[in-house]
Amino acid sequence: MKFEDFEEKTINRKEIFKGHIIDVKVDDVELPQGLGTAKRELIFHPGAVSMIPITADNKIILVRQFRKALEKVIYEIPAGKLEAGEKDHVKEAALRELEEETGYTSENIELIYEFYSAPGFCNEKIYLYYIDNLVKVENPRPQDDDEVLEVGQFTLEECKDLIASEEIADAKTIMAIQYWELNNKK
Amino acid sequence: MKFEDFEEKTINRKEIFKGHIIDVKVDDVELPQGLGTAKRELIFHPGAVSMIPITADNKIILVRQFRKALEKVIYEIPAGKLEAGEKDHVKEAALRELEEETGYTSENIELIYEFYSAPGFCNEKIYLYYIDNLVKVENPRPQDDDEVLEVGQFTLEECKDLIASEEIADAKTIMAIQYWELNNKK
Repeated sequence: MKFEDFEEKTINRKEIFKGHIIDVKVDDVELPQGLGTAKRELIFHPGAVSMIPITADNKIILVRQFRKALEKVIYEIPAGKLEAGEKDHVKEAALRELEEETGYTSENIELIYEFYSAPGFCNEKIYLYYIDNLVKVENPRPQDDDEVLEVGQFTLEECKDLIASEEIADAKTIMAIQYWELNNKK
Repeated sequence: MKFEDFEEKTINRKEIFKGHIIDVKVDDVELPQGLGTAKRELIFHPGAVSMIPITADNKIILVRQFRKALEKVIYEIPAGKLEAGEKDHVKEAALRELEEETGYTSENIELIYEFYSAPGFCNEKIYLYYIDNLVKVENPRPQDDDEVLEVGQFTLEECKDLIASEEIADAKTIMAIQYWELNNKK
């Protein structure tokens, strides 16, 4: 089928909420193929960077933090949302987040995936980088002052245990660890 | 660090939007360790099921559909949100979605991951199942009447090409294909 056979055209868009991180809109759409109309609840997000930072002794750096939406503390790969004006400087944004969250930097940074986190209702796009040859930054940029993070280094086997115990519990981190495993096997 | 060293306690919660699929709330939270207060923009979602359906000739079934938040048509693994009362019957919900979207069912269904799609702001939890020994259903349940889907079967190599061309572009589907690749190699 062609794009036109799928496309839902917006008839009306209602702005529900304009936040600091997300905007919420509800569209009335005209369905394709004469199927009538429907409502779509939509979240707009500026996008984010995330990374697989691998140390010289083949461990991954993860950050542990509280997530209010879950009321849980979980381990994730380092990540952060894109700030205004960073859309054209995504790699620099990734290195900024890496430095803020872990105190490391690198010249060895490779984009491996761009993906949407929840395409059914949200346009958040996440850029995932693989980074090794890590170098300690002497006076790293500080962490955001409303974030409490604990940084740690883990082997692949330790990561698998954290997935089993649901201390690693989000899509981008599981994806990152699977990528690392597939890559290690090559 | 302990849970208390991370926890952000809600001081006040503002209900912004109550939709058919998502609710939006904004919390004022008290940060841990005397760091003051902050705002958290939160999306509440009923959760979803998704699956890796593998055919007898070792292909994965994907569905192609329009996603309004992206204004794009993409290939994804079959998935659908949990309906009211399905929280305790997640496996049945997965089989319902499989039948509606692909016309297949199976008795061979294994839960491989439970994960959050976007833990930074959203509580959507997705259950991912691996399903093989697929059996055609004679009169399958119909698709939702506001969804236009195209169903197809793809080899692992074809999936990698779809990732490279960004026609596969979401976290759960990339994760599913990585899992399939890791599993095939065993």
